[in-house]
Amino acid sequence: MSDFLGHNYIGGARSAAGSQTLRSYDASTGEPLPYAFSQATEAEVDAAAQAAASAYPAFRGLTASRRAEFLEAIAEQLEALDEQFVALVSRETALPTARIQGERGRTSGQMRLFAQVLRRGDFYGARIDRALPDRTPLPRVDLRQYRIGVGPVAVFGASNFPLAFSTAGGDTAAALAAGCPVVFKAHSGHMATAERVADAIIRAAEQTGMPKGVFNMIYGAGVGEALVKHPAIQAVGFTGSLKGGRALCDMAAARPQPIPVFAEMSSINPVLVLPEALRLRGATIASELLASVVQGCGQFCTNPGLVIGMRSDQFSAFVEQLSALMAEQPGQTMLNAGTLASYTRGVEALHAHPQVSHLAGREQQGRQAQPQLFKADSRLLLEGDPLLQEEVFGPTTVLVEVADAAELQRALHGLHGQLTATLIAEAADSQAHGELLPLLEQKVGRVLFNGYPTGVEVCDAMVHGGPYPATSDARGTSVGSLAIERFLRPVCYQNCPDHLLPEPLKDANPLGINRLVDGKQQREAISQ
Amino acid sequence: MSDFLGHNYIGGARSAAGSQTLRSYDASTGEPLPYAFSQATEAEVDAAAQAAASAYPAFRGLTASRRAEFLEAIAEQLEALDEQFVALVSRETALPTARIQGERGRTSGQMRLFAQVLRRGDFYGARIDRALPDRTPLPRVDLRQYRIGVGPVAVFGASNFPLAFSTAGGDTAAALAAGCPVVFKAHSGHMATAERVADAIIRAAEQTGMPKGVFNMIYGAGVGEALVKHPAIQAVGFTGSLKGGRALCDMAAARPQPIPVFAEMSSINPVLVLPEALRLRGATIASELLASVVQGCGQFCTNPGLVIGMRSDQFSAFVEQLSALMAEQPGQTMLNAGTLASYTRGVEALHAHPQVSHLAGREQQGRQAQPQLFKADSRLLLEGDPLLQEEVFGPTTVLVEVADAAELQRALHGLHGQLTATLIAEAADSQAHGELLPLLEQKVGRVLFNGYPTGVEVCDAMVHGGPYPATSDARGTSVGSLAIERFLRPVCYQNCPDHLLPEPLKDANPLGINRLVDGKQQREAISQ
Repeated sequence: MSDFLGHNYIGGARSAAGSQTLRSYDASTGEPLPYAFSQATEAEVDAAAQAAASAYPAFRGLTASRRAEFLEAIAEQLEALDEQFVALVSRETALPTARIQGERGRTSGQMRLFAQVLRRGDFYGARIDRALPDRTPLPRVDLRQYRIGVGPVAVFGASNFPLAFSTAGGDTAAALAAGCPVVFKAHSGHMATAERVADAIIRAAEQTGMPKGVFNMIYGAGVGEALVKHPAIQAVGFTGSLKGGRALCDMAAARPQPIPVFAEMSSINPVLVLPEALRLRGATIASELLASVVQGCGQFCTNPGLVIGMRSDQFSAFVEQLSALMAEQPGQTMLNAGTLASYTRGVEALHAHPQVSHLAGREQQGRQAQPQLFKADSRLLLEGDPLLQEEVFGPTTVLVEVADAAELQRALHGLHGQLTATLIAEAADSQAHGELLPLLEQKVGRVLFNGYPTGVEVCDAMVHGGPYPATSDARGTSVGSLAIERFLRPVCYQNCPDHLLPEPLKDANPLGINRLVDGKQQREAISQ
Repeated sequence: MSDFLGHNYIGGARSAAGSQTLRSYDASTGEPLPYAFSQATEAEVDAAAQAAASAYPAFRGLTASRRAEFLEAIAEQLEALDEQFVALVSRETALPTARIQGERGRTSGQMRLFAQVLRRGDFYGARIDRALPDRTPLPRVDLRQYRIGVGPVAVFGASNFPLAFSTAGGDTAAALAAGCPVVFKAHSGHMATAERVADAIIRAAEQTGMPKGVFNMIYGAGVGEALVKHPAIQAVGFTGSLKGGRALCDMAAARPQPIPVFAEMSSINPVLVLPEALRLRGATIASELLASVVQGCGQFCTNPGLVIGMRSDQFSAFVEQLSALMAEQPGQTMLNAGTLASYTRGVEALHAHPQVSHLAGREQQGRQAQPQLFKADSRLLLEGDPLLQEEVFGPTTVLVEVADAAELQRALHGLHGQLTATLIAEAADSQAHGELLPLLEQKVGRVLFNGYPTGVEVCDAMVHGGPYPATSDARGTSVGSLAIERFLRPVCYQNCPDHLLPEPLKDANPLGINRLVDGKQQREAISQ
């Protein structure tokens, strides 16, 4: 493995003006790795934001197909990262090789999806209302609308997806697709990985002739504040803790010019197991649910942290099956020492709560996370106890038994916003509990049927978002092609001569895109 | 004219629990009108928000065509408001009869436009990615996305459009269209008007069988804070001052659950008059521009407050023409005493600035606003003097002469965000100053060619928005059908049985809407 420079990426060059350096760690042993990363100084944060601002006019001025070429070049560079790279990511995160390989594919696939979106052109949201010179009492002028990138975007990656939600992850892909240069704050949990990925992005930018400063990356603890407060930054993408995300939101809102923050934060992803489904396939559900809870050491935003069932013999049997399975689960290494410490505290809080009982799981100790199963009194949900609303990041889930359908309704009413909710239900269940669906829809970004929330497909229809505190803005998604909309804003042209109009709005429709013309969707060219 | 009850509108009933009452005024005489309005108590604010929350599940559950019927019924009720009503609005606002009649038509037309949007169905943003059971290495699940209303919306209307940006104005129409019940804070400047319009909405709601609480209205000074902080409120629409809008944004951001605020606030709407256009038609431009500045006593968000030209004989001649015209302009009555006081302060600040000279306009005194023309040293723009960035609400505009194209570029760079920018230009000008267009696009929501910004068409392509401080969120518009998007959020269904899917996502496409299916726009039904 070659060495790491460890310098910040600013305007196409590397910079290490500060004296403070940071270390990356072997996640399995806790030993520091022999690489040093230079904490960005205040001047470097400023320079990175300025570099992005300088790149913005040129970058947003490129055609969408040129930006698509850039994203595809990044995809190729990511795919070209070799097995040494995979080993490095695995070393920094303790995630297994197959998972890293899969995540690399997901990350490059994400870039390619946004390239498709750019070529399809519907992200422009082109709308044309032609002039009506003879309208009475007043003629109508010619009005044409499309969408442009908002400006430089600051992105904060997540620890748990060192590729797909990090340096070249979904937020970066969406921002670049929108025509917004990026300043990425490298995650302290995988700085060497971040350097390799940033190099890949920079190679792709050079290959495709992108403006310098289209992608910048800074290292450091606490540099995020200066970045979010920088006047050049126009939006923020974040994946991480509720505390961290909310802090960024508060900073962004208090700026002289407030900016939007799209923070994906905390979700306990309730799973409702309904009676008929339990009767027909309780044991299967128990083993599938268990697999979802412990998958990747429970380190997923969509990990099922709350399982709700109605009092019945079937549910009691299901609880026993799940307990037996959980008791057999081995410990797993977490992403880093901080994550393990946080998991340990979360498990301790559940143990300490008088209305929560521990059903299964080995004692939490040592360097690994032990999967745990708890059961909480339904009053905790009904009374809105904060403990049940807080995500315990790791392989733990809490069962709640409600008395009946009415109590289930009340319990769901008390839930905070979630990324997902899952119904494990047969047709008879759905018929008997038709009131659940609209209620769940009000609480979440994604409603699943007879599946488990820990797989997030990257596609047009995905919503990885939801009401607060799942995210800071329920109107966005951080996975899937709709994510680009967070970084776009509409602009309208009035009576603009055709040759001066942006391509998506010209009469001839040279891009061949779908447009809303006088209230009708069409691809045809128009005449005046 | 019949009497006014003056009670708050809560959940389909009227309520006057408090002891404090407010008066409305004759805008022309300053005399109080003989109607009293009951300031909402804290409990009434809470009740109004709760009423909206109670109506939300039923209201959002209605089909879009049912909501369209409601909007059309409101339109009919507005159109049925008689000449007594027009006289009342005119009395409260000093706006002339013809203007009120036109605005009534605009307001009902706005309701009808959103009804069309609901019937067209593209607001659903329906996206379907069908299952790929044979995909390797992992199959793809069935994923379907559409958009739902975010929940109850608080709306704060504007003084300057007592109909089109008020009780039944654009924000109310967009929120109701989205399926969001509304709590409207009646504007203190036209409370009797607000009561008549609220009655019209309530009649329409009853006629079309809408849930009680779909529209609520409260009176009072200072009741907005409790409304914005109410946990049931999920978004805010506001039109008014920068100070007022920013205060609401700050409150909303500091809530336990932050919510989005769409505030349309302050814009000086720069007009660039380019040399060739001045040479060919300087006198015409001067008279057209003047008409835009003084129209409606300059009380438009899009009033042109800054006119920039390049040093030349043509520009000097233009300045003289504009000065001569402005000197002849009569005073006009403003919306209310507060608006006049604010205008007087704004004019005084311009008079007092050592680098601003007064070119034309009668001395500002008495009960009317006197139109004014000032000229500011270009250094004020280049150095970012705050005086030139602040909107003076009223019939005043400031001329700035820049030395050349380079100085013009620098001056524009220093401008804050705007609702509009206007280019008065011939083909030769556009050719010579091609660099201006992308720069203006970065600063504004709407770019006009050879027109004047004080007409805002209500249509699909309109953007009445722009970067801060023009609005609090450049990604929205408060005029035109795109305004509905501010109050929608996406929800995804995974592997949902067809009969449980919402109508827009069912295989058969029963609504016949455009959908993005496996990456292609289509209206056809789909099969599995």
